[in-house]
Amino acid sequence: MKITKLLVANRGEIALRVLRSAKEMGIQTVAIYSEADRQALHVRYADEAVCVGGPQSSESYLRGDAILEVCRRLGVDAIHPGYGFLSENAGFARKVKEAGLIFVGPSPEAMELMGDKLSAKQTVKAYNIPLVPGTDEAISDVEEAKRIASEVGFPILIKASAGGGGKGMRIVNNAAEFEEQMQLAINEAVSAFGDGAVFIEKFVTGPRHIEIQVLGDEHGNIVHLFERECSIQRRHQKVIEEAPSSVLTPELRAEMGRCAVEVARACNYTGAGTVEFLLDDKHNFYFLEMNTRLQVEHPVTEQITGLDLVKEQIRVAEGHPLAFTQEDLTITGHALELRVYAEDPANNFLPDIGTLTTYVRPQGPGVRVDDGFEQGMDIPIYYDPMIAKLVTFGKDRTEAIERMLRAIDEYQITGIQTTLPFGRYVLRHPAFVSGNFDTNFIRDHFTPADLTPAATDPNIAKVAAVLTAMLMTEKKAPVVASSDAPAVTGSNWKRNRMGAR
Amino acid sequence: MKITKLLVANRGEIALRVLRSAKEMGIQTVAIYSEADRQALHVRYADEAVCVGGPQSSESYLRGDAILEVCRRLGVDAIHPGYGFLSENAGFARKVKEAGLIFVGPSPEAMELMGDKLSAKQTVKAYNIPLVPGTDEAISDVEEAKRIASEVGFPILIKASAGGGGKGMRIVNNAAEFEEQMQLAINEAVSAFGDGAVFIEKFVTGPRHIEIQVLGDEHGNIVHLFERECSIQRRHQKVIEEAPSSVLTPELRAEMGRCAVEVARACNYTGAGTVEFLLDDKHNFYFLEMNTRLQVEHPVTEQITGLDLVKEQIRVAEGHPLAFTQEDLTITGHALELRVYAEDPANNFLPDIGTLTTYVRPQGPGVRVDDGFEQGMDIPIYYDPMIAKLVTFGKDRTEAIERMLRAIDEYQITGIQTTLPFGRYVLRHPAFVSGNFDTNFIRDHFTPADLTPAATDPNIAKVAAVLTAMLMTEKKAPVVASSDAPAVTGSNWKRNRMGAR
Repeated sequence: MKITKLLVANRGEIALRVLRSAKEMGIQTVAIYSEADRQALHVRYADEAVCVGGPQSSESYLRGDAILEVCRRLGVDAIHPGYGFLSENAGFARKVKEAGLIFVGPSPEAMELMGDKLSAKQTVKAYNIPLVPGTDEAISDVEEAKRIASEVGFPILIKASAGGGGKGMRIVNNAAEFEEQMQLAINEAVSAFGDGAVFIEKFVTGPRHIEIQVLGDEHGNIVHLFERECSIQRRHQKVIEEAPSSVLTPELRAEMGRCAVEVARACNYTGAGTVEFLLDDKHNFYFLEMNTRLQVEHPVTEQITGLDLVKEQIRVAEGHPLAFTQEDLTITGHALELRVYAEDPANNFLPDIGTLTTYVRPQGPGVRVDDGFEQGMDIPIYYDPMIAKLVTFGKDRTEAIERMLRAIDEYQITGIQTTLPFGRYVLRHPAFVSGNFDTNFIRDHFTPADLTPAATDPNIAKVAAVLTAMLMTEKKAPVVASSDAPAVTGSNWKRNRMGAR
Repeated sequence: MKITKLLVANRGEIALRVLRSAKEMGIQTVAIYSEADRQALHVRYADEAVCVGGPQSSESYLRGDAILEVCRRLGVDAIHPGYGFLSENAGFARKVKEAGLIFVGPSPEAMELMGDKLSAKQTVKAYNIPLVPGTDEAISDVEEAKRIASEVGFPILIKASAGGGGKGMRIVNNAAEFEEQMQLAINEAVSAFGDGAVFIEKFVTGPRHIEIQVLGDEHGNIVHLFERECSIQRRHQKVIEEAPSSVLTPELRAEMGRCAVEVARACNYTGAGTVEFLLDDKHNFYFLEMNTRLQVEHPVTEQITGLDLVKEQIRVAEGHPLAFTQEDLTITGHALELRVYAEDPANNFLPDIGTLTTYVRPQGPGVRVDDGFEQGMDIPIYYDPMIAKLVTFGKDRTEAIERMLRAIDEYQITGIQTTLPFGRYVLRHPAFVSGNFDTNFIRDHFTPADLTPAATDPNIAKVAAVLTAMLMTEKKAPVVASSDAPAVTGSNWKRNRMGAR
């Protein structure tokens, strides 16, 4: 069924990004917004826009019934949920279907099956997908635990069943110290949670977060669109992603891709989804979970495959078969994404709020910016503090990195602290440049002091020398250095470059 | 020799574009500027910038000696000329070399050989490159002319040797009318120019302008980077370009590519160059000329090959061999370029001057904007009135067109007339969409009346109906139509869309 009018049940960059693809497909568009987003770009970009409530998500973007009411009133025939908010809410997806509308995403059943980590693991186990070895259920018997630990092989991780935040979590390196550590873990768990049951699982060393993009249609065709490397994380959240990964061999890529397609097949998956794996330092991989929606980091996959994933989602939702097979798909070039958050990386990545007093995007070859802001706007405190996704691509990883550094230097944001300086730091770090890093990158390689000007710019002395030379040139000769040219409001390129590269 | 400091002897978008690539390569950069360009982006983007004189090109951008003096003073070791200005001036290239600097371009000898149309044709003739059949020299003998016309085959074109602007030019469709037309042409030429000598050449029917990008190194390697279709022209200047062309078969592409490489070989070409051909409606092609510099429209080639042509130019100038062979090169996707000129397409494309009171670039997947302006800037009257190159790319021609239409609608420019509405008109025209067009597109398919709102938007009635419905919805229901949201300065997306698509 042809979609003629699409409502985007989201905000910010992803709402704008979905609207753009819908517009290119000739589909009429409806935006929803909260009272905090009256001036947002997605509101102005859509053909129609409706305010659905207050600034808190629960008052607006999470109000499924209000959104369905908008659909009824405006003659909408499909809903794209974006990511976050209602995107993984099987109950909402079911209501959308019951209202006779198309939900641009997988079936509610697939969402439910993969939404619960335990049922997801049980499901994929039957398909011989590797899982992190360990106990399926929580145990408290030390002898039984010891037996399992030996089977799994050391090092192992003991995790409190009721735990969280690292509490009651212990790494055990060999059998000799197992009993003592297990007992300590149980004691800790009892005192912290009143429950001594623990899980035992293999401790994955040098873990990398590698995820595979999959795409399925309603006719049983499922393909994978290769991997994304998402190991650079802060507070367990991705901040830099890339495709392809620098550690996957063609064989490993094909094998992980095959497994991801199997996972999708296990839940009759339709549309775009992502199968997340942990890869250890010996290139063993383990299924983590499946995300049943478009990911934040989907642009890097778009850049290396040439596909528009939102358009593919919409075509699948309309009932079309995929227009390509696995064999048609190839990787062209390399892409990087830096999430530009309103956060202070020098202060433990605490969210920053305020006004974008300067906001000028980088341009030129190999640069794409997905955002939902413009100069003068406030970053609302109610939502995720992501300002933009800065994506660069080039013929190889080196060029993508060089372009990212150039684009970071070109990006002009004032009025708010951002993760741009952190991105610059990572992209220049030998561990990142060599490709030899894991999810512990920040723990192992970063302290806030790394972002002080002297540390970020080893060439600061050289820059100062150049400046001095320019000033001298100006005095001695009729040529005019550009620092003499009148400043233009809203630009700080000259200033930016002083503290950059 | 490694280039460490590059001067860009140009302005506007191409200066900024070259600076970006140099920056990515870690090369220090120097900009030059005229008094009219003090606030220009390229001035602020470069590490150093020097004013070389008054606003007229002859007072600044064409002052080769002043530019060389800047190089000497600032320790520059290479000059990139961009396009226009000194880029095809063999004398300047020679002086650059004599000063011990690298000229990022071909040898002065190659520039001279290809810069003169007659010597270029003589040179390539020896390599069996097809030329438009006709007289090599001007003649005035009617019998001789008649003999040549029969050889060439009708229709033929008679052109006054001293002519220009169509004066003394006649198309002759058959032998019977030749003598009479020839005599008329001679009379016209005598009365207009005082010289009755004429050229006779084959009249190319349904001509398309197809050019081949070539790249050569100093080690004798030359490859072609496929074609660009540049048939959409106004006043004999390109306005929309694309790659690949929709009419070239793989065989014809290979054959034209082979010929272009031969042309480059004929003059020992190094660096990036373009061999222009005329293609007739029977797919015969004829050599026109070679441009010995980077072309305005080079981005479409970059998008389909994944190469950065400026970086390739710089690597070749440093003496590196090409890092790829012809067999390594493939076409991925489709790219379009619309030149956004400060011109009024409804008024015979007359240049418009003024201030960019609103200037917001389109963003998102598959869009690249190369420009040298920002909001609030004036378009200087002294130079080419091009504001920007709007480039879109997609997996195929249809997607590239859809993205261009979306990007045109998203582009917010006020204060000045531009070719954006003309671009929208062309991209929707059945002749363009089908690929069945030639260099006469504007003559055959365009009148200024086509840009009045009623003509550009056949859906205007529908848009009005939707607006009415929105207003009614607003009155009847608690939902708020976005037209009710406060306007944000600098944005006219809602307004833009009214007259769009």
